[in-house]
Amino acid sequence: MGAALALAERGVGRTGVNPSVGCVIVSQAGHVVGRGVTQAGGRPHAEAAALARAGAAAAGSTVYVTLEPCAHVSTRGAACADLLVAARPARVVVARGDPDPRTDGQGIARLRAAGIAVTEGVRAAEAARTMAGFLARRRWGRPHVTLKLATSLDGCIALASGESRWITGAEARAHAHLERARHGAILVGRGTLTADAPALDVRLPGLADRAPARYLLSTTTPAPEGWTRLAAPADIATITQDELLVEGGAGAAAAFLAADLVDRLLLYRAPVLIGGGRPALGDIGLGTLAAAHGRWRLHDARTLGSDRLEVYERDRN
Amino acid sequence: MGAALALAERGVGRTGVNPSVGCVIVSQAGHVVGRGVTQAGGRPHAEAAALARAGAAAAGSTVYVTLEPCAHVSTRGAACADLLVAARPARVVVARGDPDPRTDGQGIARLRAAGIAVTEGVRAAEAARTMAGFLARRRWGRPHVTLKLATSLDGCIALASGESRWITGAEARAHAHLERARHGAILVGRGTLTADAPALDVRLPGLADRAPARYLLSTTTPAPEGWTRLAAPADIATITQDELLVEGGAGAAAAFLAADLVDRLLLYRAPVLIGGGRPALGDIGLGTLAAAHGRWRLHDARTLGSDRLEVYERDRN
Ligand SMILES: NC(=O)c1ccc[n+]([C@@H]2O[C@H](COP(=O)([O-])OP(=O)(O)OC[C@H]3O[C@@H](n4cnc5c(N)ncnc54)[C@H](OP(=O)(O)O)[C@@H]3O)[C@@H](O)[C@H]2O)c1
Ligand SMILES: NC(=O)c1ccc[n+]([C@@H]2O[C@H](COP(=O)([O-])OP(=O)(O)OC[C@H]3O[C@@H](n4cnc5c(N)ncnc54)[C@H](OP(=O)(O)O)[C@@H]3O)[C@@H](O)[C@H]2O)c1
Repeated sequence: MGAALALAERGVGRTGVNPSVGCVIVSQAGHVVGRGVTQAGGRPHAEAAALARAGAAAAGSTVYVTLEPCAHVSTRGAACADLLVAARPARVVVARGDPDPRTDGQGIARLRAAGIAVTEGVRAAEAARTMAGFLARRRWGRPHVTLKLATSLDGCIALASGESRWITGAEARAHAHLERARHGAILVGRGTLTADAPALDVRLPGLADRAPARYLLSTTTPAPEGWTRLAAPADIATITQDELLVEGGAGAAAAFLAADLVDRLLLYRAPVLIGGGRPALGDIGLGTLAAAHGRWRLHDARTLGSDRLEVYERDRN
Repeated sequence: MGAALALAERGVGRTGVNPSVGCVIVSQAGHVVGRGVTQAGGRPHAEAAALARAGAAAAGSTVYVTLEPCAHVSTRGAACADLLVAARPARVVVARGDPDPRTDGQGIARLRAAGIAVTEGVRAAEAARTMAGFLARRRWGRPHVTLKLATSLDGCIALASGESRWITGAEARAHAHLERARHGAILVGRGTLTADAPALDVRLPGLADRAPARYLLSTTTPAPEGWTRLAAPADIATITQDELLVEGGAGAAAAFLAADLVDRLLLYRAPVLIGGGRPALGDIGLGTLAAAHGRWRLHDARTLGSDRLEVYERDRN
């Protein structure tokens, strides 16, 4: 399942409205005979790709897949559950069920009806992260939102003078570009557009073809050529991409937090003190300290050069 | 040496102008036959205490000590180097030399002259931390200064309303009290005194007898009963304690940073976002971002309940 999750992670941000799914097929003799990941645009599905590679070796195999195989036929391909039944694996291991009403348990039921053993719920939380956009769309009718902040130890994103290049180092900035590649859409506030005129492209070898859609948050200013304007955070429900990265600045970040529309926080922190600089966040409408607690849970932390990255997730339980 | 360092750590903050030193004596047969740590007020020295415990078993032993044994006789006791020569250990392992001009290599020379093998420099950096106040006094003629900040992820120490209880949780606050116990002196700015009237005592079982001296940073306001006023950060050179903890607020913290009088930074961070709150630091006189880099090195990080503690050290090399 680890290999299937890693495959799924590769496709995050480029499968359109489909989740990025990973699939690995292990033969009875213990060899990997097929691997697949949802292709750009959403088809072929991971299972179809992996089964095509495996061919006859799929018979009697164990199939690991990060999402329940789909039960619905589409103009773009057969139902994966049917493909699996035809290939006759001994066992299918599924990370999590597919909430799509056209599948929602029916994929697994169809496998079991055909005499294939099915194990569910293996590394489900990790699988959910690889398809966070897909799940946010199903649950809340909007994309999954990641907020990126790059700050000093005292929480500043710039000196009082406005100087902000660079607080974090090259490794942290490269990682931020990797995160861009994981997102189908990027948004900045009007202040940042005016101050920095950011290109919002992915400047990493091999990933330059990833061109996230660009959004501007502004009540006053038309979007530049090639960008789309959103007049309020809630308008993200209208965009077609499933993963949105909010890159700042302090006003846009605060607007998304105030609307409780941030699911994941990427906090890049450099070991510097600024003092009296520009704060990372504007007013988020917090009334009391009690209301601030219990919202964020640390999911991951790592060192990037001399900087630290912390990843927090919004705890909505 | 690990055991000797742990002993030394216990005495930090209560040995007056003497460093807290740890000493462990291991017999030829491999048993610990003596342990000692500098006593409250600075005497007896660690070696004298450990040798008294070991008695005749010190002959042929290995002595681990976190600071070079002193070479000078005092009215309060014999020179430790002489005590060691008399006890005839086979070997003395020393973490670091004593910069006191009355010793400064003479302690080690005296041991070697008596035919005792001496190993120097074992875990010297850790030993330096246990005697940071002593070393700061020798090098810079002032105490070692730790700045404590307790902030949200976005670097706030209070809401805009002033509400600041509590950002961090019970574990972090208990740890902060442990840090108070390691310090002979604590300072707050006039704003914090007025707002919070802090007692600055050590509220931990078994450590309530540690009563750090209290200092107020203010140009305008006389110190309360039992406190001493400092009119500027540079005035710390006049205080007698060797370890000073600066507990805030934003103005006092900034004043010490602007004067480059902070050696160690304790950053307690709660997983909350405040947004538009009171920043942790006032202006520290930073002209450019370049000047902010290369000053702080992460020394330690740990989880305290749902909070994180990061310890940074000023890199003066
Ligand atoms: N270090 C970092 O991580 C980082 C990242 C990005 C930016 N920055 C810095 O941050 C600074 C810009 O920050 P900023 O706060 O001035 O600007 P900003 O957040 O980029 O943009 C603020 C603008 O966003 C729009 N906006 C905010 N809330 C809104 C809402 N609820 N609905 C609709 N529109 C909304 C408003 O535009 P209208 O007035 O047009 O309505 C507002 O003026 C720049 O100096 C930039 O360099 C730093
Ligand atoms: N979360 C935390 O970690 C934490 C910790 C402590 C305090 N706080 C909060 O911080 C707030 C207080 O912060 P603050 O910035 O207003 O006050 P502050 O830093 O406690 O005190 C500021 C005062 O310190 C004196 N001062 C500053 N620089 C000086 C210098 N170079 N030389 C001499 N005196 C100097 C001045 O007093 P004079 O005007 O008298 O000269 C100044 O008004 C309170 O709300 C408190 O609750 C939070």
